[in-house]
Amino acid sequence: MAEQEETNPWGSKSWSYLSTLRQQSPLIQCITNLVSMDLMANTLLAAGASPAMIHSILEIPDFTPHTQSVLINVGTLTPEWLPAMKAAAGVANQFGKPWVLDPAAVGASGFRLKACLELIELKPTVIRGNGSEIISLSMASIGSGKGADSLHESSDALEAAKSLAKSSGAIVAISGSVDFVTDGQRVVGAHNGLPMMQKITASGCAVTALIAAFVAIDPTHAFEATASAFSVFGLAGEIGMGSAKGPASLRMHLIDSLYALDQETVLHRVKITSFS
Amino acid sequence: MAEQEETNPWGSKSWSYLSTLRQQSPLIQCITNLVSMDLMANTLLAAGASPAMIHSILEIPDFTPHTQSVLINVGTLTPEWLPAMKAAAGVANQFGKPWVLDPAAVGASGFRLKACLELIELKPTVIRGNGSEIISLSMASIGSGKGADSLHESSDALEAAKSLAKSSGAIVAISGSVDFVTDGQRVVGAHNGLPMMQKITASGCAVTALIAAFVAIDPTHAFEATASAFSVFGLAGEIGMGSAKGPASLRMHLIDSLYALDQETVLHRVKITSFS
Amino acid sequence: MAEQEETNPWGSKSWSYLSTLRQQSPLIQCITNLVSMDLMANTLLAAGASPAMIHSILEIPDFTPHTQSVLINVGTLTPEWLPAMKAAAGVANQFGKPWVLDPAAVGASGFRLKACLELIELKPTVIRGNGSEIISLSMASIGSGKGADSLHESSDALEAAKSLAKSSGAIVAISGSVDFVTDGQRVVGAHNGLPMMQKITASGCAVTALIAAFVAIDPTHAFEATASAFSVFGLAGEIGMGSAKGPASLRMHLIDSLYALDQETVLHRVKITSFS
Repeated sequence: MAEQEETNPWGSKSWSYLSTLRQQSPLIQCITNLVSMDLMANTLLAAGASPAMIHSILEIPDFTPHTQSVLINVGTLTPEWLPAMKAAAGVANQFGKPWVLDPAAVGASGFRLKACLELIELKPTVIRGNGSEIISLSMASIGSGKGADSLHESSDALEAAKSLAKSSGAIVAISGSVDFVTDGQRVVGAHNGLPMMQKITASGCAVTALIAAFVAIDPTHAFEATASAFSVFGLAGEIGMGSAKGPASLRMHLIDSLYALDQETVLHRVKITSFS
Repeated sequence: MAEQEETNPWGSKSWSYLSTLRQQSPLIQCITNLVSMDLMANTLLAAGASPAMIHSILEIPDFTPHTQSVLINVGTLTPEWLPAMKAAAGVANQFGKPWVLDPAAVGASGFRLKACLELIELKPTVIRGNGSEIISLSMASIGSGKGADSLHESSDALEAAKSLAKSSGAIVAISGSVDFVTDGQRVVGAHNGLPMMQKITASGCAVTALIAAFVAIDPTHAFEATASAFSVFGLAGEIGMGSAKGPASLRMHLIDSLYALDQETVLHRVKITSFS
Repeated sequence: MAEQEETNPWGSKSWSYLSTLRQQSPLIQCITNLVSMDLMANTLLAAGASPAMIHSILEIPDFTPHTQSVLINVGTLTPEWLPAMKAAAGVANQFGKPWVLDPAAVGASGFRLKACLELIELKPTVIRGNGSEIISLSMASIGSGKGADSLHESSDALEAAKSLAKSSGAIVAISGSVDFVTDGQRVVGAHNGLPMMQKITASGCAVTALIAAFVAIDPTHAFEATASAFSVFGLAGEIGMGSAKGPASLRMHLIDSLYALDQETVLHRVKITSFS
């Protein structure tokens, strides 16, 4: 093990998060878009967490204090949902729980951009988007994406991510062919995963939920937890692809693989490198 | 057959419900949570029923009288949905149709508990929850669960279920490693199923929908229909597990198996025993 | 190829639409029911389009002008959603983009029927329903269906479809054992597909979304695009059925097959014939 940790410290770290997640099964509240709920809940269950898709503002005072982290995703935002998102973020802050923002398709409209900027004022622990979304947020401008799909490589958004991390205080994570994570200074890239995962709707939403679960395990090391979640999810996809024939079977095998991931595989195949 | 019925009367009963369901294809209205809609509709279709996810209060006067049963699940309840739930329960009562309540995550908040208690005033035919949910309802208190997941074994909730059945007049059903059904006096346990089914999000919601479909076939024997639905669903899971490698492939194979269940399998493998 | 085109001109046409879709990846806005979102988005992604499930009325002025077509499906309609549907249809018209209406379960209530008739006033490019839905629309009366399921063969609805096409100016498409497409004069039937596809919830919704994607590629030939989309989706089902054991595995293999469909298969197996 000592040698393993030297040759691949991120493998050890990732395994530590995943195995702790399975033991502790933290309760993760998800206020998310209507498209992603099924895959997100199944991802969290397969990883070992306990998902709760609870989004009524009336329930937040009773329920949110008992969660270990909160996930907020604006993919199908309407004005009615925003107050609950803000309330949940506020309760998370009040009780010292981490919360994670997924600014899905933030460039789609001025309404959505404004909502995301207001949510960022509430100090998310992590912000995870694709290249276009991170650029939109950093520039506070719309039209840089194509709905939920990115028009930018993740590497194109690296400077925007650093800037956003500095201005917001959040860890900023960019999905792409390499997934980047930055705190404004440090940058690591998670290399696991494969392009076909982008053909699975809500796969980006699902990895944000996994980030919320990993951060719940170790809120004071959100940078490490975020990079580890990216790699574990990507690795589940890589292994799943061994049995898949297309995006729908990949989706299924990815979840099965996430459920079955073992220490040996995580230690040897997690690939995270420093870019700073 | 005579011998079969003696050795396993519940097998015959369960097969009778399932085969009648396939012939009659009753229309089941589902007012359910946003996470469960896909799996619930697919479960009902695979079993032979005709699902209708219709939840606007404006449609209930026209539509609900034509349904054979109504399913109400509060998993992602907001105040806007509650009036339609009550209206649908009311129309079901008025037209003598059974209706089934799934108090999903009832312990999450005072709002949700109050809503469920109000719905119980409208005389559901069956109430199906996990151990924590049934305890919450019976004690009219929150905080006994962990979101949608149970912190209690189904057997822990048996006395609570009996008490709830007596006070409400409903058949009360508890999901767990053994699924219990009680009318306040009689208790049976359905032993089919396997633990990994709890790793499939909305699998509990789906079995409640199947109960609604079985009860539609024989509203005057809701106790028997409920126990049979538990076993048929669990048996589909057992058979599905033979081809599955994890929770996502189990979900797929469970639905395929439910669609394909034959008389021989149901007669021999349904396992329901008396606990009273 | 010349010979191919003579022997099966619809094969060439269908392949042309599908291959262009993969190259251009048009942005398709879907305002759809809560049950169908996951399958619809995955269908569009597998076919090569870029789906955007965006339904807030606040976002339509910013977002809809950038889409290549709009899909509107009333399957879980509530009054709150209708203004956004109308606004999106209006913007599509204003910017000369096609839009497609799926009058899911239109016969369920007077509210839903009225909403669909109002939407038809906004000049959809294509209307796609099952036999009962097309009959309900054409007769402007409710009660002809069974929730989302049809009580009529597609051929029973042919005259209703012609009449609706003439009165509305839309291409009208009827799903069934044969899928019919008419502009009021011409009628073609798409023969691909298989009965088990009706056991997959939202498969009808998914094919309407694929129609919207094909129409986005060639808005001036919506008749041809609609027939081609029916056959391509049906063909993906036929190929998927080769690996499937029931409705849930069919759903998965259908999406995988749609993603992998090659020219040879489309040219030889698309089957569309004239009925006029």
